[in-house]
Amino acid sequence: MSKPSIPKGTRDFGPKEMVKRNYIFDAISTVFQKYGYRSIETPAMEKTETLLGKYGEEGDRLIFKILKRGASLEKDLQKSKNGKKATYAEEALRYDLTVPFARYVVQNQNDISFPFKRYQIQPVWRADRPQKGRYREFYQCDVDVIGSNSLLNEVELVQIMDEVLGKLNINAKIKLNNRKILAGIAEVIGESDRMIDITVALDKFDKVGQVGVINELNEKGISSKAITKLEPIFDFAGTNEFKLEKLEVLIGTTDIGRKGIDEVQSILKNLIACNIKPDSIELDITLARGLNYYTGAIFEVVCDDFPSSICGGGRYDDLTGIFGLKDISGVGISFGADRIYDVMDDQNLFPQNIETILDVLFVNFGEKEALYCLGLLAQLRANEISSELYPDSAKMKKQMKYANEKGARKVVMVGETEIANGILTVKDMETGEQASLTIEQLIHSCVV
Amino acid sequence: MSKPSIPKGTRDFGPKEMVKRNYIFDAISTVFQKYGYRSIETPAMEKTETLLGKYGEEGDRLIFKILKRGASLEKDLQKSKNGKKATYAEEALRYDLTVPFARYVVQNQNDISFPFKRYQIQPVWRADRPQKGRYREFYQCDVDVIGSNSLLNEVELVQIMDEVLGKLNINAKIKLNNRKILAGIAEVIGESDRMIDITVALDKFDKVGQVGVINELNEKGISSKAITKLEPIFDFAGTNEFKLEKLEVLIGTTDIGRKGIDEVQSILKNLIACNIKPDSIELDITLARGLNYYTGAIFEVVCDDFPSSICGGGRYDDLTGIFGLKDISGVGISFGADRIYDVMDDQNLFPQNIETILDVLFVNFGEKEALYCLGLLAQLRANEISSELYPDSAKMKKQMKYANEKGARKVVMVGETEIANGILTVKDMETGEQASLTIEQLIHSCVV
Repeated sequence: MSKPSIPKGTRDFGPKEMVKRNYIFDAISTVFQKYGYRSIETPAMEKTETLLGKYGEEGDRLIFKILKRGASLEKDLQKSKNGKKATYAEEALRYDLTVPFARYVVQNQNDISFPFKRYQIQPVWRADRPQKGRYREFYQCDVDVIGSNSLLNEVELVQIMDEVLGKLNINAKIKLNNRKILAGIAEVIGESDRMIDITVALDKFDKVGQVGVINELNEKGISSKAITKLEPIFDFAGTNEFKLEKLEVLIGTTDIGRKGIDEVQSILKNLIACNIKPDSIELDITLARGLNYYTGAIFEVVCDDFPSSICGGGRYDDLTGIFGLKDISGVGISFGADRIYDVMDDQNLFPQNIETILDVLFVNFGEKEALYCLGLLAQLRANEISSELYPDSAKMKKQMKYANEKGARKVVMVGETEIANGILTVKDMETGEQASLTIEQLIHSCVV
Repeated sequence: MSKPSIPKGTRDFGPKEMVKRNYIFDAISTVFQKYGYRSIETPAMEKTETLLGKYGEEGDRLIFKILKRGASLEKDLQKSKNGKKATYAEEALRYDLTVPFARYVVQNQNDISFPFKRYQIQPVWRADRPQKGRYREFYQCDVDVIGSNSLLNEVELVQIMDEVLGKLNINAKIKLNNRKILAGIAEVIGESDRMIDITVALDKFDKVGQVGVINELNEKGISSKAITKLEPIFDFAGTNEFKLEKLEVLIGTTDIGRKGIDEVQSILKNLIACNIKPDSIELDITLARGLNYYTGAIFEVVCDDFPSSICGGGRYDDLTGIFGLKDISGVGISFGADRIYDVMDDQNLFPQNIETILDVLFVNFGEKEALYCLGLLAQLRANEISSELYPDSAKMKKQMKYANEKGARKVVMVGETEIANGILTVKDMETGEQASLTIEQLIHSCVV
């Protein structure tokens, strides 16, 4: 029999990875909660009609669908034999957390009190070609507020990004832009109706550079006159204030551009009131973000030496419109837990000893000694000290190897002598020192 | 456009449900960790060959399969048109956590140091007919130790059940039996080779009673002589010691029965050394458990007034054998989080105010006041106090309603006067009292 394996693009997470992953999830959700966001969860499966058509043609192809069963499947297969169209699926695995969230809001609109601040940390599935850092199952950590137009929400989300990065010790830059600024630019170059093409091309600036973007714009049929007018945006250097002044000149006369500039100014001003360091946020007018539903502020968090962004999002004015609930504005961001994990692992940012989660291991010297240790263990556990007794009276070497691999902080040996004297021989696994302690002393040394 | 909805048998969990669900998951995983178990996670999807044939014919039908895509699907549809057999799926959603765990152990056997103590809290999917309390997506919380024959593991799992129940304040009984006792019974009634039929029938005792079990045994062709011999086990009342004495007489002469009795005695004796109250565990020799892979101790936790068990498990001697790794014994239990939720909700066992997760809400009186509040908020959050500013300067009534619905503990009002005097008007939402506090006093009142 060949060794079993898992589907390509998926992963098992062992104990050491899980501790690190949970460290990230805990940090993120603690910050979300502190800012007044509350958790929801939606099912892994949505109805196919909820998901299809929401992510473009390419997206539709990447959605994992659930095979129909029994008579329902038979019927579809019969249809297909007769040359008719069949779907073979009524449910599909969620592709992101945004569309299920929009569906949730519309479905529960009468029970939700707006503004609704929710976060959601769950896996999503995409039948993408697996490659380094790209998986078919991965976690998203989304935080959104829906039902409020206030720019204070944007401010709060930047604070959240800043605080999560600080908490995880990640050195990264928060990039900010505004779709209205991009619309202003499209207007002054005379290509307002080509906003999407311009956005899609600009979105690749980080990867393909100025020449690449210009080539794509050419291919899309944007006039060379317009492209020439666009060029100043590629070397917009300097402070945020300086950039805003330049934008003022470039697009300050367009209504939409004016609005974009005002929004960015308001967000930056309010961020100063929140004690955010001014240089941790950068206005980047080439930041475009691929998704079409953004209408205002857009965000992205990028680390040095790491190719992809670890967080991104923005303001959307009509996300729930796809399910029939119009004119509800929202803004949100999504942290990519898997990418954050990779950055932190690469740069050694996890706390030392994070994998050590066992305080005390009792060596098993045999049935009588084990029975005696059970009572001691109960005392340790009553004090919330993680501890265990090796279940078999195996060779000492084997038991010590187990203690090592599990990262036990202390190993306790209780043989006949110890039982007679009511003391414990305790080895500190970090220093290697051995001491004779009472159970009270052991408890004290673990709790401190 | 009709309102969107979710697939039948699945559920959304809103903020209030999530707080309660997380309370259960936290309690359970904290206990698991304290006993030295470490978390792993496996992918939602497994290869179909990993899952099929592991849960019986009925189980196979209930597995959600993932529809193939593109050329691969076309090929299968073509096969079907030509009257050939096709599968339409290469992957499927996990049906439980046990088979993926066995697969994980076999796949990673060279990296695992045994005994391997793992826990796993993840959803599973079954295409069962949905009904009250039965869902198509639900969470299992599994804890297993694999690679050790020691009965100390059984003892530890009973301690875990006992501690989880205590922590969640659930009044329930831990039932214990042993497959070897059942085998001893089968032997003395002369039906050793019908062990599975007897187990399956006995497993329904709680639901169908003695008459129902006997009818099923009759139907299965167990001789009436054997059934008569079996009857004493239906009224095995009294203390665990008394039952063991009766078993001694009934099956003490069979090798396998003798072993079962010894195992139960050893487990009960060691539990006393762990300070477990003797009456919290009950030897129930009609306890059978449906699954065939159990070979030793079996457990179940039942609550009064609740039809299904909320936890169950047992010893299995060859689970990894299905993937080619022989002779690895393990023992484990699984908590049903959804059922525990139902019990706790029915019996009002969740802590009071569990839904209150916002410490402070700032009323928004306008742009200037909001800007001032941002600085105060930053101070609260620096002290890990969950707090938010209402994002819009809406009517007071609307903002207070929001504060109420969110369960905010305190509402802070900062208008012109407060800004001029450097104080805050703070309303305690529980008592309704209003006070004038400095920001330091507010922080102090939240932290205490």
